[in-house]
Amino acid sequence: MTKGRLEAFSDGVIAILITILVLELKVPHGTDLESLRPMLPTFLTYVLSFVYLGIYWNNHHHLLHATGGVTGGILWANLHLLFWLSLIPFTTAWMGENHFAAVPTAAYGVVLFAAAIGYLILEIAIIAHQGKDSKLREAVGREWKGKVSVACYLAGIALAFENHWISHGLYVFVALLWLIPDRRIESKLRE
Amino acid sequence: MTKGRLEAFSDGVIAILITILVLELKVPHGTDLESLRPMLPTFLTYVLSFVYLGIYWNNHHHLLHATGGVTGGILWANLHLLFWLSLIPFTTAWMGENHFAAVPTAAYGVVLFAAAIGYLILEIAIIAHQGKDSKLREAVGREWKGKVSVACYLAGIALAFENHWISHGLYVFVALLWLIPDRRIESKLRE
Amino acid sequence: MTKGRLEAFSDGVIAILITILVLELKVPHGTDLESLRPMLPTFLTYVLSFVYLGIYWNNHHHLLHATGGVTGGILWANLHLLFWLSLIPFTTAWMGENHFAAVPTAAYGVVLFAAAIGYLILEIAIIAHQGKDSKLREAVGREWKGKVSVACYLAGIALAFENHWISHGLYVFVALLWLIPDRRIESKLRE
Amino acid sequence: MTKGRLEAFSDGVIAILITILVLELKVPHGTDLESLRPMLPTFLTYVLSFVYLGIYWNNHHHLLHATGGVTGGILWANLHLLFWLSLIPFTTAWMGENHFAAVPTAAYGVVLFAAAIGYLILEIAIIAHQGKDSKLREAVGREWKGKVSVACYLAGIALAFENHWISHGLYVFVALLWLIPDRRIESKLRE
Repeated sequence: MTKGRLEAFSDGVIAILITILVLELKVPHGTDLESLRPMLPTFLTYVLSFVYLGIYWNNHHHLLHATGGVTGGILWANLHLLFWLSLIPFTTAWMGENHFAAVPTAAYGVVLFAAAIGYLILEIAIIAHQGKDSKLREAVGREWKGKVSVACYLAGIALAFENHWISHGLYVFVALLWLIPDRRIESKLRE
Repeated sequence: MTKGRLEAFSDGVIAILITILVLELKVPHGTDLESLRPMLPTFLTYVLSFVYLGIYWNNHHHLLHATGGVTGGILWANLHLLFWLSLIPFTTAWMGENHFAAVPTAAYGVVLFAAAIGYLILEIAIIAHQGKDSKLREAVGREWKGKVSVACYLAGIALAFENHWISHGLYVFVALLWLIPDRRIESKLRE
Repeated sequence: MTKGRLEAFSDGVIAILITILVLELKVPHGTDLESLRPMLPTFLTYVLSFVYLGIYWNNHHHLLHATGGVTGGILWANLHLLFWLSLIPFTTAWMGENHFAAVPTAAYGVVLFAAAIGYLILEIAIIAHQGKDSKLREAVGREWKGKVSVACYLAGIALAFENHWISHGLYVFVALLWLIPDRRIESKLRE
Repeated sequence: MTKGRLEAFSDGVIAILITILVLELKVPHGTDLESLRPMLPTFLTYVLSFVYLGIYWNNHHHLLHATGGVTGGILWANLHLLFWLSLIPFTTAWMGENHFAAVPTAAYGVVLFAAAIGYLILEIAIIAHQGKDSKLREAVGREWKGKVSVACYLAGIALAFENHWISHGLYVFVALLWLIPDRRIESKLRE
């Protein structure tokens, strides 16, 4: 029951974030196709952030599916994750409006990194609640996507000051990596 | 269970989009009736987009009602549809603020076209999951409204550069076409 | 089931509208108490609109509670009501920012009037679905609050051009009238 | 049933408020790290308000968990609480943009104080409905955190005109006090 409300609240926040993103797409002043061109970087960042929020919603969904009850720790770990996700529209706008400049590109990566850590903390809080026989622990233990993602974010932050295209490539790569839902948890639960 | 959360998330996003639309209605500077007149095109576009989002919510509702489980494919097809719907407030504002100029009118049609394709992909994903005996397949197979809509959108995009009033007429026509809920699915399920 | 989703969607839209209202409260430039004074009319309108949206949520809640199934007609009558409610933040901002000028005050009343008619249409659609023995029909038949409200809105619109304070008094009066939840429906259902 | 919809509506409003906060984080004009520095006070206020809204959601959750039915009084007490919470993004932005000036700091405290009173009224409405044997009454009766919070808010408002850092310290202190979920209600219900 408590879990249902936690899911509903998280769904609400992510749904709002994914739609608040569109408020950053400022209506262009001109009415020809040319006036759309300066919007292109903003638009591409919009797509990327939409996909990231979709991935988080999707994985969050699988994660809570594997959860029994909800403790105070899980609740606050969840709010902590939502906090970092709520900063995505801000870094999206900053990066998009500045044509992928170095510092905004790094800031985008910092928020993604912090959200990944927030997700990890949520996993740890759930596993701690499930105890020794936690099925989630087994499933997550063999996780490599999370580790690769965190490494890519860190590389993206550092390389933003060298060549920001590499950073964007890394952010896109991680998004593609996660577009496939976390089948490990699913298959583990099905056993 | 998973389906319930998919519905709730989609409801959330569409509910937010339908209310974010109103944020485009900028408060006029004057306080007489005259000051409302320049708002008329924006207001009419607002009404049209409100109706379109209502139609999508309605049909989405009937579609998921006919769905059993939710796969990763269905989930992402759904997010893809929501992505295009999330661009409606943007094209609504661009078209309304520019008194139905050619390119914004075409852009409005492009987003409607893409959303229609997104809806089709979602239908295909659900039918693929239901397998050979899919009732939805039968119901959708005889669909003509979807095909007419897509043809109208394409005509609307092309004719925006000739006479944008034809485009608007076509967009309004499609909306009227869909105001009637999709009774085919309903009647098929009732059997 | 369908009813649950209709309620959830309506809740979502009203919850967003009630919070979008606050976006109209522009942060003042100064930092002394004086700088809050020009905000007073906006703030008072904010309170009034908050109460009105709360009343609609409350009564909508009781109304759907008395409803069995959901037809296409009910669904669109509901969206029609939500459309007018979605204009409340717009008229609220227009009236508040212009210190209750005549036309914005009348416009505020026009939207309230249209929402009241929308509510009435929703009631009629539900009664039509329930058929001859509709308990809702009996409960609503003796309704006087709805009629008084509509009369007050019309008077408020007309008198805005004479003395707008009378209009505001009428709008506040109707809000107070409805602050008491609709016990008739409740008591009827309890029988 | 009614309770479920009350929870869903409150969740919706709080989820929107917690994400509307981020709209106050205006994208900086520069693209270097320096341009983030003037945002620091706004950002810190953002974090504090995020935590406060999280705390209210959390405690609201526990409170309604302990509630049986929903009366008109409970419903309006709940809307009254949501009203004050809905002003948090406004005072957050005012305080953050003005580098914690005296009056905005006091205003922030006034809204927190009013929300605390709103929460208290909601508790009283629920206890009144539960009657003589109310378990909530016992649990709340020994409450000291609520009293300490109200005292801190009042001190914060008064001291904002002397030394606003003391006010901020008090606001942070109260937030830390509540980060621990209200175990009293939980343990009482478990008996």
